[in-house]
Amino acid sequence: MATAASNHRDAQSGADSGGERSGASSRARIGIAGATGYAGQELVRILARHPAVTLTTAMASGSTSTPRAMPALARIWDQPVIPLDVDRLVRETDVVMLALPEAASAELAPTLLARGLRVVDLSGAFRLRHDAHRQRWYPATATLPDGTVYGLTEGHQKEIRHARLVSNPGCYPTAALLALEPLRRAGLLTGAIVVDAKSGVSGAGKAPSERTHFSENHGSVAAYAVFSHRHTAEIEQELSTAVTFVPHLVPLDRGILETIYATLTPGTTGQQVADAMTSAYADAPFVRLTGTQLPELKHVAHTNFCDIGWSVDEPTERIVLVAVIDNLVKGAAGSAVQNLNVMLGLDERTGLL
Amino acid sequence: MATAASNHRDAQSGADSGGERSGASSRARIGIAGATGYAGQELVRILARHPAVTLTTAMASGSTSTPRAMPALARIWDQPVIPLDVDRLVRETDVVMLALPEAASAELAPTLLARGLRVVDLSGAFRLRHDAHRQRWYPATATLPDGTVYGLTEGHQKEIRHARLVSNPGCYPTAALLALEPLRRAGLLTGAIVVDAKSGVSGAGKAPSERTHFSENHGSVAAYAVFSHRHTAEIEQELSTAVTFVPHLVPLDRGILETIYATLTPGTTGQQVADAMTSAYADAPFVRLTGTQLPELKHVAHTNFCDIGWSVDEPTERIVLVAVIDNLVKGAAGSAVQNLNVMLGLDERTGLL
Amino acid sequence: MATAASNHRDAQSGADSGGERSGASSRARIGIAGATGYAGQELVRILARHPAVTLTTAMASGSTSTPRAMPALARIWDQPVIPLDVDRLVRETDVVMLALPEAASAELAPTLLARGLRVVDLSGAFRLRHDAHRQRWYPATATLPDGTVYGLTEGHQKEIRHARLVSNPGCYPTAALLALEPLRRAGLLTGAIVVDAKSGVSGAGKAPSERTHFSENHGSVAAYAVFSHRHTAEIEQELSTAVTFVPHLVPLDRGILETIYATLTPGTTGQQVADAMTSAYADAPFVRLTGTQLPELKHVAHTNFCDIGWSVDEPTERIVLVAVIDNLVKGAAGSAVQNLNVMLGLDERTGLL
Amino acid sequence: MATAASNHRDAQSGADSGGERSGASSRARIGIAGATGYAGQELVRILARHPAVTLTTAMASGSTSTPRAMPALARIWDQPVIPLDVDRLVRETDVVMLALPEAASAELAPTLLARGLRVVDLSGAFRLRHDAHRQRWYPATATLPDGTVYGLTEGHQKEIRHARLVSNPGCYPTAALLALEPLRRAGLLTGAIVVDAKSGVSGAGKAPSERTHFSENHGSVAAYAVFSHRHTAEIEQELSTAVTFVPHLVPLDRGILETIYATLTPGTTGQQVADAMTSAYADAPFVRLTGTQLPELKHVAHTNFCDIGWSVDEPTERIVLVAVIDNLVKGAAGSAVQNLNVMLGLDERTGLL
Repeated sequence: MATAASNHRDAQSGADSGGERSGASSRARIGIAGATGYAGQELVRILARHPAVTLTTAMASGSTSTPRAMPALARIWDQPVIPLDVDRLVRETDVVMLALPEAASAELAPTLLARGLRVVDLSGAFRLRHDAHRQRWYPATATLPDGTVYGLTEGHQKEIRHARLVSNPGCYPTAALLALEPLRRAGLLTGAIVVDAKSGVSGAGKAPSERTHFSENHGSVAAYAVFSHRHTAEIEQELSTAVTFVPHLVPLDRGILETIYATLTPGTTGQQVADAMTSAYADAPFVRLTGTQLPELKHVAHTNFCDIGWSVDEPTERIVLVAVIDNLVKGAAGSAVQNLNVMLGLDERTGLL
Repeated sequence: MATAASNHRDAQSGADSGGERSGASSRARIGIAGATGYAGQELVRILARHPAVTLTTAMASGSTSTPRAMPALARIWDQPVIPLDVDRLVRETDVVMLALPEAASAELAPTLLARGLRVVDLSGAFRLRHDAHRQRWYPATATLPDGTVYGLTEGHQKEIRHARLVSNPGCYPTAALLALEPLRRAGLLTGAIVVDAKSGVSGAGKAPSERTHFSENHGSVAAYAVFSHRHTAEIEQELSTAVTFVPHLVPLDRGILETIYATLTPGTTGQQVADAMTSAYADAPFVRLTGTQLPELKHVAHTNFCDIGWSVDEPTERIVLVAVIDNLVKGAAGSAVQNLNVMLGLDERTGLL
Repeated sequence: MATAASNHRDAQSGADSGGERSGASSRARIGIAGATGYAGQELVRILARHPAVTLTTAMASGSTSTPRAMPALARIWDQPVIPLDVDRLVRETDVVMLALPEAASAELAPTLLARGLRVVDLSGAFRLRHDAHRQRWYPATATLPDGTVYGLTEGHQKEIRHARLVSNPGCYPTAALLALEPLRRAGLLTGAIVVDAKSGVSGAGKAPSERTHFSENHGSVAAYAVFSHRHTAEIEQELSTAVTFVPHLVPLDRGILETIYATLTPGTTGQQVADAMTSAYADAPFVRLTGTQLPELKHVAHTNFCDIGWSVDEPTERIVLVAVIDNLVKGAAGSAVQNLNVMLGLDERTGLL
Repeated sequence: MATAASNHRDAQSGADSGGERSGASSRARIGIAGATGYAGQELVRILARHPAVTLTTAMASGSTSTPRAMPALARIWDQPVIPLDVDRLVRETDVVMLALPEAASAELAPTLLARGLRVVDLSGAFRLRHDAHRQRWYPATATLPDGTVYGLTEGHQKEIRHARLVSNPGCYPTAALLALEPLRRAGLLTGAIVVDAKSGVSGAGKAPSERTHFSENHGSVAAYAVFSHRHTAEIEQELSTAVTFVPHLVPLDRGILETIYATLTPGTTGQQVADAMTSAYADAPFVRLTGTQLPELKHVAHTNFCDIGWSVDEPTERIVLVAVIDNLVKGAAGSAVQNLNVMLGLDERTGLL
């Protein structure tokens, strides 16, 4: 029963813009597979408003679903989500964003690559480089396709620019790596690292279960997957060091806050930490450093920002870092679009601020 | 400690846009007074990204505050909120958005008008046309300035287009009027109307109090201001009929859901109701009709949409309507920008989708 | 891995009590069928600590489940929930509390009655007296067994005292009837009644579904079952008048707040309303009248109280009442135990304060 | 407007008890100072129903307040909270529970002790034994009165039995110490300990502030007081080892979940850990060990239980423990009453199950 025309791209540019944006005819055509989950919906929301690419199709996770409308996205994206259709993806898109269960991604991504498309995969299927690790945590993925790049955008724009398949990082690793990478590269860390993560319930996915029931989470907090969460392997791969990682569900919808406990190399000062962080992110539009003022989750909800703060206790060589992201944006759909922008030679902020 | 350049308007338009947007030099210059409250922050957020106006200054509610940064808005609006300064508003802006306590608006708006500026006022100071009502509910407002228009955008674009002072509707009246106006105009309503409103706690404002304490609201619901909320007078003024209005605080941050109970004129069919609603909003980009599928609050959070659904019981001539808005967007800052767009001759969707 | 003895009834009575409470040998033996749902768990919690009855067995809803421990109730009730077993109920109990789906209750209750047990049923199976209404809303219930009493305790202690089957009221009707009954009996009401109810998500039951998913409720409110909720028939039956009833889910776990809109007979004063309410509940230990100070949901969470306040607008003959209960206590398990106390000749507060 | 008699102690014992409980005349008389805060309210709630002591008076934190009723406690405790009055405490009570700001406790406790009363203090004023530590964190407390005992009940019943002043542990230390003490005593721990704590907002107290505003916490998580929370000193005092402690506010009202990271001495097995925990709490009625099944906060809300689980990674000698309590019960009022029970020679469970 929705009414009113909705050519909102004109609206976004103001009354005086119209169709005169040069190069519109050469806009990249983007498809989404897995558009009905939480990350998929967020992809639709971002790409439908993206000023420099065209979302041509949003498909379900399977080929037998019936087309369905998305009332929450009326006026933003008025097309239905249609069944998965590889031929149509090949005909109508240049790049496909996969927001699928990892086994489905493991199967579909090589097919799409073979037919000439580029792919951003939001699942874990292609994140682990070592066969042994991948076989343990993502057994459906036999091999990594040539041209696969681990897509933590910050610092890896060059590889991502020409990647055929970008494997988008996990939500938990995104925050942990953005906080720790600069210190590791500067040689300021030593010894054990603890990552204590607090995640909103949307991180547990859209499938109804006892775990995602409102009454099981309201007024509660619970740790899970201690010593057994596969994001641990991903963080350890990128940091090349052992990490103790414990995720928790907290009673909110969107967002992750990670509290990270580490030891500094002897003599490291707070100023050295600040310098390492500042110089690492001098050109990173989505990393906001809050310094010794710790960041809060609400400041990044519904944004692609990762806010990072820290506190150093010089006498005891301890550091506590706090990093916050929106798990569905910087932890999934937003960073996927950030990677897409880089792949297409666009400013990485396009459509994300 | 924020880094990286943040000329995000370029980013919004993609890599190929740059500064070449014609007419940029003639963009309207907008100022905000009262930028630190919840509605004011939302105004900054929207106007900083607005593609067709320039936010030139964001000021506090008082002239004696010290400038302060807004960490949540870093990279979106990196200027500090400065003390209120009328001369500077006159020099640097064409239109001023007032997100002030009503007594402050009552005093400031006439001054700004007298000095040639146009004003959108988000307080209640100028909403009631009848002196007796205004003196009861907004005693600080002596008279309505000439050229004042009640700014429920939908259906009133013509008056708003040339208004000097647009008085933005209250959050509760916005949802109630959008739901009821089409039926009233079509002559389908008779008898008493009940508006039962459920609001998020941000509607109670940013000032800490027992009412806004987390622990007083978590796990609780409370009605307030029964028979004594001043939004009643505003709804009654616009509908020209008596209304029983009871607001409640529910444990969420943003959004209002109103359940509206009314009686239809004898013989009215569900189809007539649907026709009246559909034709009323055929050209309204921000009203989404969900028909007999009732709307949910989460679908409009962080948007300028008002979703409206209804259920008719023909044998008993009863109708229940449900309308949802984000109280800080369509209920405040979003509709203020929608009005601003109309005042400036822009597409009313500009910057709001 | 729970340790330590847990003879907590001794503990409850202090060090000096021990087993010397006279009459312990004649304590009524109580069983629960359906102990794993939210209302069933609450029954276990209350009855396990009840000082004057003995909870002998807690059974699941079906006869094929495997026994399971209840970690949340460790030290309070350390026995497992066992499969449903009618013979064992007959052997080991005097009264059975049924917290079952209504079709299961409809089948089981007559069997238990026939074998000499008394029953308190928490489902809707036996609430509607008129066959036509019952066949529409609870088609599994062919007839009402002899000796069935509608169990709104307040005011009906006499019938409940000797009932064989007490049909516990629905959660929504409990609050509505406690608020409206005194006014109706005093002849102070006229015309249409609107009951707008806000319920915590535990009211939707323990089964995982999209409706009960955390992310669908957090930050949201939704109306449901407009003109089609079967509690409407129950309220109308008890009030003998038509009611417009709309329930909503609000983002909290436990509790119901109802806002009730009614019209007073001409000339009714606020004092008459207060007198009617006060005299109706002079001896009701679980109804707390807050007068013109409206009640808040949090004050009754985890209690068996129903708090009721109201506001009268004498010139327009309108009244708004607000009633709050914990849907799992006064709206289910608590009122069931209150009825049990009356059936057993105990003080109705026993085990409930 | 509350009605109905409320001699609920009779009700608690069932219809057959009446006043015949022997020894009622020798029941200890208890007073509360600071009854209006969250912990104070919980004390009233528990003590008003306590079967073996008599709550004789509930006082405010200051001597100049006006008496006020507590609507949430109507029918449970119908007396008003009166101004603080030392002479009346001396006349009417045997033991006083102090739920005051620590500076007020520091001043009042010695006075009460000098006048012959026994005291349970819920503030931090008397928790730190070393003068240097106390002067840093609780400068208002000049000295520890003779007969002061740190009141973590579990394992310290003997000292508490005869203490004049019991200093109730902090909420965060309670969970941390209950989890770690058995392992420390068994010699199973080595190296650094990290305690990452997530607390409900009631832990921040009842005073309205930006920190406790609903909208600042809903949908958010924030760490605070890194390297500077005074509970660190308390945990370190009791464990005799350094601890990194970071508290967080999570968006719920009541409860604390602590995730504790530690290193086991080489060769320690999971079985040894389980044995140490089980034997430590064999006789502790309020510690429930969940073993490798991690505990969830909701299971202890509104109870005096501390649930503790853990996970051991034998190859890397790491252990993660998770402990949960209700911060207002086992973290404050509940453990204070548990201590009171021990001081009076009662079963420590009395009034708490």
